[in-house]
Amino acid sequence: MAERRMFDEILHAFNRGEIDESEAGARILELFYKGQEHFMLDLEREKRLGFPEVVYAEGKTMADLLDIVARLLEAKGKVYIASLSSEAETRLEETFHSYGIRSGGRAMVIGSMSKHTEELGVVGVITAGTSDISFARECVLLLEELGARVVTSFDAGVAGIHRPVMSMQKMRDVNVLIVFAGMEGALPTVLASLTDIPVVAVPTPIGYGFGGQGEAALKTMLQSCSPGITVVNIGNSVGAAAAAIRILRAIRKG
Amino acid sequence: MAERRMFDEILHAFNRGEIDESEAGARILELFYKGQEHFMLDLEREKRLGFPEVVYAEGKTMADLLDIVARLLEAKGKVYIASLSSEAETRLEETFHSYGIRSGGRAMVIGSMSKHTEELGVVGVITAGTSDISFARECVLLLEELGARVVTSFDAGVAGIHRPVMSMQKMRDVNVLIVFAGMEGALPTVLASLTDIPVVAVPTPIGYGFGGQGEAALKTMLQSCSPGITVVNIGNSVGAAAAAIRILRAIRKG
Amino acid sequence: MAERRMFDEILHAFNRGEIDESEAGARILELFYKGQEHFMLDLEREKRLGFPEVVYAEGKTMADLLDIVARLLEAKGKVYIASLSSEAETRLEETFHSYGIRSGGRAMVIGSMSKHTEELGVVGVITAGTSDISFARECVLLLEELGARVVTSFDAGVAGIHRPVMSMQKMRDVNVLIVFAGMEGALPTVLASLTDIPVVAVPTPIGYGFGGQGEAALKTMLQSCSPGITVVNIGNSVGAAAAAIRILRAIRKG
Amino acid sequence: MAERRMFDEILHAFNRGEIDESEAGARILELFYKGQEHFMLDLEREKRLGFPEVVYAEGKTMADLLDIVARLLEAKGKVYIASLSSEAETRLEETFHSYGIRSGGRAMVIGSMSKHTEELGVVGVITAGTSDISFARECVLLLEELGARVVTSFDAGVAGIHRPVMSMQKMRDVNVLIVFAGMEGALPTVLASLTDIPVVAVPTPIGYGFGGQGEAALKTMLQSCSPGITVVNIGNSVGAAAAAIRILRAIRKG
Amino acid sequence: MAERRMFDEILHAFNRGEIDESEAGARILELFYKGQEHFMLDLEREKRLGFPEVVYAEGKTMADLLDIVARLLEAKGKVYIASLSSEAETRLEETFHSYGIRSGGRAMVIGSMSKHTEELGVVGVITAGTSDISFARECVLLLEELGARVVTSFDAGVAGIHRPVMSMQKMRDVNVLIVFAGMEGALPTVLASLTDIPVVAVPTPIGYGFGGQGEAALKTMLQSCSPGITVVNIGNSVGAAAAAIRILRAIRKG
Amino acid sequence: MAERRMFDEILHAFNRGEIDESEAGARILELFYKGQEHFMLDLEREKRLGFPEVVYAEGKTMADLLDIVARLLEAKGKVYIASLSSEAETRLEETFHSYGIRSGGRAMVIGSMSKHTEELGVVGVITAGTSDISFARECVLLLEELGARVVTSFDAGVAGIHRPVMSMQKMRDVNVLIVFAGMEGALPTVLASLTDIPVVAVPTPIGYGFGGQGEAALKTMLQSCSPGITVVNIGNSVGAAAAAIRILRAIRKG
Amino acid sequence: MAERRMFDEILHAFNRGEIDESEAGARILELFYKGQEHFMLDLEREKRLGFPEVVYAEGKTMADLLDIVARLLEAKGKVYIASLSSEAETRLEETFHSYGIRSGGRAMVIGSMSKHTEELGVVGVITAGTSDISFARECVLLLEELGARVVTSFDAGVAGIHRPVMSMQKMRDVNVLIVFAGMEGALPTVLASLTDIPVVAVPTPIGYGFGGQGEAALKTMLQSCSPGITVVNIGNSVGAAAAAIRILRAIRKG
Amino acid sequence: MAERRMFDEILHAFNRGEIDESEAGARILELFYKGQEHFMLDLEREKRLGFPEVVYAEGKTMADLLDIVARLLEAKGKVYIASLSSEAETRLEETFHSYGIRSGGRAMVIGSMSKHTEELGVVGVITAGTSDISFARECVLLLEELGARVVTSFDAGVAGIHRPVMSMQKMRDVNVLIVFAGMEGALPTVLASLTDIPVVAVPTPIGYGFGGQGEAALKTMLQSCSPGITVVNIGNSVGAAAAAIRILRAIRKG
Repeated sequence: MAERRMFDEILHAFNRGEIDESEAGARILELFYKGQEHFMLDLEREKRLGFPEVVYAEGKTMADLLDIVARLLEAKGKVYIASLSSEAETRLEETFHSYGIRSGGRAMVIGSMSKHTEELGVVGVITAGTSDISFARECVLLLEELGARVVTSFDAGVAGIHRPVMSMQKMRDVNVLIVFAGMEGALPTVLASLTDIPVVAVPTPIGYGFGGQGEAALKTMLQSCSPGITVVNIGNSVGAAAAAIRILRAIRKG
Repeated sequence: MAERRMFDEILHAFNRGEIDESEAGARILELFYKGQEHFMLDLEREKRLGFPEVVYAEGKTMADLLDIVARLLEAKGKVYIASLSSEAETRLEETFHSYGIRSGGRAMVIGSMSKHTEELGVVGVITAGTSDISFARECVLLLEELGARVVTSFDAGVAGIHRPVMSMQKMRDVNVLIVFAGMEGALPTVLASLTDIPVVAVPTPIGYGFGGQGEAALKTMLQSCSPGITVVNIGNSVGAAAAAIRILRAIRKG
Repeated sequence: MAERRMFDEILHAFNRGEIDESEAGARILELFYKGQEHFMLDLEREKRLGFPEVVYAEGKTMADLLDIVARLLEAKGKVYIASLSSEAETRLEETFHSYGIRSGGRAMVIGSMSKHTEELGVVGVITAGTSDISFARECVLLLEELGARVVTSFDAGVAGIHRPVMSMQKMRDVNVLIVFAGMEGALPTVLASLTDIPVVAVPTPIGYGFGGQGEAALKTMLQSCSPGITVVNIGNSVGAAAAAIRILRAIRKG
Repeated sequence: MAERRMFDEILHAFNRGEIDESEAGARILELFYKGQEHFMLDLEREKRLGFPEVVYAEGKTMADLLDIVARLLEAKGKVYIASLSSEAETRLEETFHSYGIRSGGRAMVIGSMSKHTEELGVVGVITAGTSDISFARECVLLLEELGARVVTSFDAGVAGIHRPVMSMQKMRDVNVLIVFAGMEGALPTVLASLTDIPVVAVPTPIGYGFGGQGEAALKTMLQSCSPGITVVNIGNSVGAAAAAIRILRAIRKG
Repeated sequence: MAERRMFDEILHAFNRGEIDESEAGARILELFYKGQEHFMLDLEREKRLGFPEVVYAEGKTMADLLDIVARLLEAKGKVYIASLSSEAETRLEETFHSYGIRSGGRAMVIGSMSKHTEELGVVGVITAGTSDISFARECVLLLEELGARVVTSFDAGVAGIHRPVMSMQKMRDVNVLIVFAGMEGALPTVLASLTDIPVVAVPTPIGYGFGGQGEAALKTMLQSCSPGITVVNIGNSVGAAAAAIRILRAIRKG
Repeated sequence: MAERRMFDEILHAFNRGEIDESEAGARILELFYKGQEHFMLDLEREKRLGFPEVVYAEGKTMADLLDIVARLLEAKGKVYIASLSSEAETRLEETFHSYGIRSGGRAMVIGSMSKHTEELGVVGVITAGTSDISFARECVLLLEELGARVVTSFDAGVAGIHRPVMSMQKMRDVNVLIVFAGMEGALPTVLASLTDIPVVAVPTPIGYGFGGQGEAALKTMLQSCSPGITVVNIGNSVGAAAAAIRILRAIRKG
Repeated sequence: MAERRMFDEILHAFNRGEIDESEAGARILELFYKGQEHFMLDLEREKRLGFPEVVYAEGKTMADLLDIVARLLEAKGKVYIASLSSEAETRLEETFHSYGIRSGGRAMVIGSMSKHTEELGVVGVITAGTSDISFARECVLLLEELGARVVTSFDAGVAGIHRPVMSMQKMRDVNVLIVFAGMEGALPTVLASLTDIPVVAVPTPIGYGFGGQGEAALKTMLQSCSPGITVVNIGNSVGAAAAAIRILRAIRKG
Repeated sequence: MAERRMFDEILHAFNRGEIDESEAGARILELFYKGQEHFMLDLEREKRLGFPEVVYAEGKTMADLLDIVARLLEAKGKVYIASLSSEAETRLEETFHSYGIRSGGRAMVIGSMSKHTEELGVVGVITAGTSDISFARECVLLLEELGARVVTSFDAGVAGIHRPVMSMQKMRDVNVLIVFAGMEGALPTVLASLTDIPVVAVPTPIGYGFGGQGEAALKTMLQSCSPGITVVNIGNSVGAAAAAIRILRAIRKG
């Protein structure tokens, strides 16, 4: 094996003081990755992180998007896409419908549904209002695709204080809670005061005027007086799903 | 009366087309206020608006502050002061203690307590946390001085969802609610969903990091999903008291 | 009654120390709301808060909007909708014109006009400019629908200082004032210095460049040197109407 | 039991239609909490949420702080305090040293160390720079006090790319990672690309000029291209510890 | 004259195409300023612009400040200084009192008062509140020093709408108006609607909470619905005085 | 004359102490404006302020815009309109072309050109880039309509330092300078260092990315190190023209 | 030569004290540029700065754009254009295809390709993600047009930490590095820690929600903990190319 | 050598498919750095990047600062420190004066001056105002310490347009320019239009009110209409020096 010989040489050169430590490190890295350019595609990410690469459709031309999806389908058999416009959604459905497609909100999974021999865990997905539901659906799509079971409760906002309390009745056996809220974003704070399970808060870009577009909700969640809420960016359903998967995997590992 | 003659002359000139409409208006105003320079002091404001002028101590030198307070005491017998530093508070107490002094938070009233033959109405003052209490006390001081009765409930934040519900039990007969909250500022939203009385929300400069200093609380209150909350600026206890007095007076007028 | 037996059991368990206080509270809540899932619709909000649920059309698909409106019409006989695009407005009018429709600005009420045996009170609605009028009309629509009488004065901005003074002549018998202003937003400050009635200020998203879209107006209103102005979010006509209704109800209760 | 009789009466009144649903709910809540005013202190929070109430010293007078600490010590035997100034720290140490004190960063625990029969789980705490360490120490203090084992790696920032990789060697058996970074805040992104365990990112108020005080770090963490990072507010060590405890408890529950 | 010969050479080289146009320009500039390094001190600015260089004390060490003042006094006989701390003010007074000193707000002029054979013009200086007065005084100091007559009206804010109207009575013969306002900053808008003379608006860093430190006032002034207001930066008394001097000089030139 | 009798009565009532001072003031204002509702249209503004009312087309429906223009044309014979979309421009041209129309940038004047017996003064209008020119043209249109002569120099930005210097050669006899600049907005600073005439700076919404849309230019102009620049809002050509007219009128009055 | 005589006269007048120094300077400038109005076009910029003028298409009408391009083509034979819409791109291609056109991203060069006798130097262009590539292509187009050789590595973001390390293998002989990154913008920090060559960081407007549109990336780059990164504005490919050209020219000069 | 054997084993396991690619990479890194914990100190950074680690004193306790400095002095013989308070400066001087100390602004180098056999290159350092000089001095200190020659021109701001032109006369043979400016920050734009050498712009936190603390200057520099300016963060003298060193080294490499 040529790599082994070259590694020996690098270490020798380092031991003889011909190259310094950082040079040696750089050369070993070079050696290791040499000739493995395809690795740039990061196809192993799902194995490494438990979460697949998600293609963000926004800001890509239709041609680029179709090309990337086709290449990934060939390489991995399944593609996850987010932030789809309705045109892009229609186009992808026309082009790839034979592969099998599941949709939710502005997200889509192309390829056959994975078989999961056992449930990865249970995630509760709660929204404050009806406008938050499309964001929640993206999250549900990804979670179910990756083997989690999902329990939902939509429109449970604090404008009627009984609603968050009632929504928690359905969440008795969930392992982690994902809470979507726009406007003033108070729901995660109230829910986190009622339970000790992990709470991932997702501000949604719902709301008008000052503090609109999810900014007030984000600040509310970061300033929450309930301990232990964590937050992802505005509208980041994908990130919330990934965070929940990390927790479910941690639970399974024990 | 000279003013009357001059007024006649102005109207004549206007009727003859010698001066135009806005010139006539300006001259009448001039006429009316002429020789009444002291009116600049706006001493009648309390009669006009139901709320006295409040001296903001911040940004004034100690000498200026003492001078203004002395002049107002002489003119009106009573002075309201806000945003006092502890040094200023001590100095005012030393200088004017013989006039009678009531304090609350960073506010102070110097002069003898007014006698109110009947109660102006009842104001509920609620805080989310203990750090909000000093702001609430400024409000209570002003409200009581102006003849309102105050019912308080401190530390009723949503981190324990039973606390706002319980605090409302004490508020059965209040006419208007003033709610102080810092951090994520969710309390007014929850309270306003439990009652139909007017709710004035006061963000307090409590909170750290991003959205701190009351900014998150202000945005939350402006974005509230509960209908009919109105808001004053961060830490504006004086404005909240004035708003409540306006409502109480409206109730008494019927 | 099964609920009663279960309640007894909960209290017994608590008294015997088998469950702690918060567990007991949670179970009673669960008991009470059990089997009452429809309550999630919050149909009683108008009775509870004196103000109906208002559907925000923005961010909803046409299909979702039509569906929600149809369901609410069936359940309650009347629906309030805000932030309508002109397409949505046209579509709703075509679909539901047989129910009776009133419009104002971007708001709409579908269903027959309520009969109010007596006037709830009088609200003054003033705008600074002509661009603010559509926001004011939303407010007027809601106020009249809920039984208030409205007195209006449009285009009363401070660029001609006689205009706010004159507009106040018409407001002699109003119980509460709602003031709409964009640009520099100075009108509520000037009006509040002329009257002691409650003043609700509504910044409108009128204005260009720096501080545009209502931001300067909002800040001006929060920083006002006139005591007792309260503020709602930019363009929040619905919130202003709800705040006024709260005050009118407080006046009627006495 | 008087409460039981009253509960029966409420349900009867509801069944007979004398009171509506929300009135019934409010009365039951009132009934339940009646005479239990001390519950306002929320002393059961640790049992309910797995995380104790933490007293924020900032913005409290020394007298108030000493008073609150003394009352909580009497009620619960242990007190957690955060955001201490060095004066407050000294004063608390002088006053309460006999109770046993542990410190870390600007946080302090007063009262005897709890005995934990078994380890709650393992938390990895990593900092990007040396200036972040005091924030990390607050976190470690709370985690260890609540029964978690902590593995630390300080000064592992991306300015030397080998440092984050090396720091992960020590984190092989941790259940959850808490990562502190100021300046450009890139460390959590790099670490999250190397592992599938939950990552809680804490921006610290380190950094100068534009985007300083932790703002750039917060934005970086929210925008991260690594999937599944969750974020707490700038400098919020307490919130990060609480989030980690929620995850550890979820793991133990299975 | 050497410069003339060198100039000829430059033009020759240009005509022969040896150097290009911009090279020629640069050389002529070099030639002209050569040996005139002291010109870097910009001592002629007052003659050129009608307004002297003003030393900003803030951010300079005491030693640097004393040194600069001494050098300028020697070169020009008079020095203008702004943004003085009270320590710096005291120190300058002790050091340079023999030169003659005039103060106003945080500004100071050292050196003997200039003799102006005729008045440069009349400037009206109006403030909204008492806290704005110290900023106005800096302006007055500079204006009078440069030969303008100043008419003042302090505390003329819109909270009493008669006050701005009355203040304008005193301004009948002024050439330009400088208006200082903090808080909501509405005064320049109202005054500009009453007069056609030039209005320079100066936001002051007065105000608390959201939009405080003069930000709301600045935005209000930039968004003003009165036509023709121009604005300088927050607290920029020096800039306002300079703008007024420019206008007065334009008037004198005709 | 009825008004006179009523005025006498008001003053009598005041003298007898039946009404207080502010009540008397309010009644006189009421008296004066009574029956003059049309005055609300503020038709005299041009006479009062030397600058006509300008209709902002943006945010108005086409129907409202046509209606307002028609009414103003009838009342005053001439209408000024700004912020026109190209559709609105076309529509107005079709509808009102018989009145005579002049256009510039997004502004338009409808009605016959006024005859000015003598020139009001000379205004220099300079732009930094070519993208600023449409803003400058709005300004030129208004200035010429109101009787000023305009000298222009377009594309004189500092990226070639000789360009601002050269542009000033053309400005020898102007009375006031209006300078438009987007991007980094440095041009007014450089020009103001070359001349002592009044300089009104107009930031334009030219520029991309951070500080784009004119924000960087606005800040640069407010922070300018050249003394005496005044600023109007981003893209506010109308305000700049109004400010220049105020100065020209001040020059003519002497 | 008339200019020479006039120059003599200016110097004489200065020497005799008839004019002051700044007047003399202004006159010489005037003299020099007199009759050279075309110089305003700044056609010599490329010679002076090593970088041509680039026409920004955004905000220009199609007619203006075509006109400017045609005039510059006539004057210089080649035109550089940036920020093209796809319509503008199509239109320019149709109109000027006979001149020869090269495109990249939203930039275009019209005119025949320059011949460079020797390579100006080597620039490495790296992007974090695929969405950044179109920005990179604009940069590549300009660099190659001006004689630089470009080495690219696209999609080398830190989400897979091996990717930036591998991308640097290709950059062994580059003279300067341009790094494009959106989202959290961490890539330049990591690359700068691996190399000592100059690094120009370009934030791209990629990213959603809070800190989106390149703002987080910009702040990250300015706060970078790796020493010596410099930054251009969001999406400023042209500026980055210009900065690289400045460095390459400095290298060639030695 | 044990490392070699272990490396063989890793590659074998990878070849046999027992571990995947990323696992193999992680283990090799682990192997390489194993037992080299001290490397965490990143002592080789200067060799790798051409720029030493600089200790930021701000936010560190005096004890921590003294400890770090002492350790680094022992390890490397020389320490670079920035953002020193005057107390810290005094204390370091007292403690380490025997090692040799050079200071500039708020920066300091402790240890004997390095001997540079040949000059690394020439850097021009220019400031707009006198308040920027202390920032420039930090930069000069670092540059000279690392072997560069520095040419300075202080107080060359655009308020006198001849000053930047004159300052460039001194910069004829510099390789790279560092320009410091606060306030409106226009100087780098003007200088970059006069030269083709690399320009690194440093905004300084000089300036008051809106856009103060260097924000306006930063935005101006990022929006500059002169091509090829690059920017570092506000007050980041260290970063500017590092960027210049990167360029000088690139020049020497050729």
